[in-house]
Amino acid sequence: MSNSKKRIVVALGGNALQDAHSGATAEEQLQVAKKTCDYIVELIKAGNEVVIVHGNGPQVGRIVLASETARDVTPAMPFDVCGAMSQGYIGYHIQQALSEKLRKAGIDMPVVTLVTQVVVDGQDPAFGAPSKPIGPFNTKEQAEELIRTKGYTMKEDAGRGWRRVVASPRPVDIVELDTIHKLVGSSIVITCGGGGIPVVRKEDGSLEGVAAVIDKDFAAELVAEKVDADMLLILTEVEHVAVNFNKPDQRDLTTMTVAEAEKYMAEGQFAPGSMLPKVQAAVKFAQTGKSAVITSLYCAVDAVAGKTGTTIR
Amino acid sequence: MSNSKKRIVVALGGNALQDAHSGATAEEQLQVAKKTCDYIVELIKAGNEVVIVHGNGPQVGRIVLASETARDVTPAMPFDVCGAMSQGYIGYHIQQALSEKLRKAGIDMPVVTLVTQVVVDGQDPAFGAPSKPIGPFNTKEQAEELIRTKGYTMKEDAGRGWRRVVASPRPVDIVELDTIHKLVGSSIVITCGGGGIPVVRKEDGSLEGVAAVIDKDFAAELVAEKVDADMLLILTEVEHVAVNFNKPDQRDLTTMTVAEAEKYMAEGQFAPGSMLPKVQAAVKFAQTGKSAVITSLYCAVDAVAGKTGTTIR
Repeated sequence: MSNSKKRIVVALGGNALQDAHSGATAEEQLQVAKKTCDYIVELIKAGNEVVIVHGNGPQVGRIVLASETARDVTPAMPFDVCGAMSQGYIGYHIQQALSEKLRKAGIDMPVVTLVTQVVVDGQDPAFGAPSKPIGPFNTKEQAEELIRTKGYTMKEDAGRGWRRVVASPRPVDIVELDTIHKLVGSSIVITCGGGGIPVVRKEDGSLEGVAAVIDKDFAAELVAEKVDADMLLILTEVEHVAVNFNKPDQRDLTTMTVAEAEKYMAEGQFAPGSMLPKVQAAVKFAQTGKSAVITSLYCAVDAVAGKTGTTIR
Repeated sequence: MSNSKKRIVVALGGNALQDAHSGATAEEQLQVAKKTCDYIVELIKAGNEVVIVHGNGPQVGRIVLASETARDVTPAMPFDVCGAMSQGYIGYHIQQALSEKLRKAGIDMPVVTLVTQVVVDGQDPAFGAPSKPIGPFNTKEQAEELIRTKGYTMKEDAGRGWRRVVASPRPVDIVELDTIHKLVGSSIVITCGGGGIPVVRKEDGSLEGVAAVIDKDFAAELVAEKVDADMLLILTEVEHVAVNFNKPDQRDLTTMTVAEAEKYMAEGQFAPGSMLPKVQAAVKFAQTGKSAVITSLYCAVDAVAGKTGTTIR
């Protein structure tokens, strides 16, 4: 892989915004965002054009939790609005932290967060099998009331109580794509936070928010296709994708062809909700003929230079 | 005033996002945003370039209320983060609602919300006299604990309990101005929501969020100066600014010179926290030689055409 300048869409996982040692306060998370930006700024210093898509799991979880806990004193917010709020919150922190690192590196480049809606298909089969738990635990009685009054799908979670579950449909379109196009290259664009605010397009063409969680790796893949990126860089906890993970014969992969990835997926090598969606997103992007790389935040620069990480081609 | 196309910065007041008859749920507020956009779209259909700055009082109040109410189950969010969340929430609603109206009008123009930080001066005298109440009412004991543990300024509010008060400093700079410049004209830009996320510039040049409320009319005025707008259009509850307001000799004003406005302000004609900051912002913009207009949402189009409203020159 050459060291030439690339257009890279970076998918930042949860650990880039909240690590195992950090607390859940906004102040602590800002510190994590600052550390994360130490790595992102290196990609920019190397001359790459960077677009950032970030997760929002812990953050939107706490927004929903606060909103539902306070529902007797102020109306609980719908999930699409909670997602929009998390984009404002996390985007603010990343843009403040990354601007600071750029300034110190002598790079004069705006960092901008776009509130981004992502269209999903109302007929996506995921809506028939909601599986993503969101928000607080409820008693059986509370769960029954939420089913009756709000039409929620509630599932019991291993004796800990009842939680709402929502669908995780695939992203099909990015509403604010024109603006991403206008800014990419001359700005660092933060977009599709949390996978994007999920909306469906109704028959009359208008958009409507829905309660759903779009996987941020799939959203990042879609952004990468749409902006004709050279690379989709998925940053997670580990330096390499592995087969036989956590077994004596674990084998770290430096490269994977699409065919190999499909074989491993068929074998069930990758955990659903964890490595599997990352590999699926990487495969989808690799099928466009470009490279997708999965590695850790700390190895991002070396991975872009082809020195580590798992490259899917 | 001519009917030619103008660059207009629109300051949307609270009633544009939550009217007297609407409830406080997100669903009800989206309906109000849709009605508001019926008027905004007329300005765009007339060929004007529009930048939108909106208030966030009721919305950020509810975000803070939910966050503080739930503070025993999840950490309360600092006020700057609550402001960022309100920008995501309200921006999402306006961009969804306005895009729909534009589409129906056959206008293909992106609507984009920028998460926006606004710099205030840490030495602003407002910080010495915090006056803006935010968040829930507390008991005396709770208030004393918040003063001790968080350093809040708490004030008793007419026997209803103790509330936190924060400063309302003047905006001095807009961090994301370059991006506003890049997009204005080709997009409808929503920026400086709630007056902007208040930040101070520290000695080393880095930015830090502060607990403060920037008046959205002053923020809109600063945007209007910076983007070289032809008009600052402040939309509020009334069609005209009036002197001797609510008295037998009330007189609606169709125009006001800067000198006249200053005389009326010296007479105490305008209510602090209500019409006064609007007139102050309008006067500041008028001093650049351009027009500022104060009127109601419903009269916006006629006011831009010079047919109604109060124009300050």
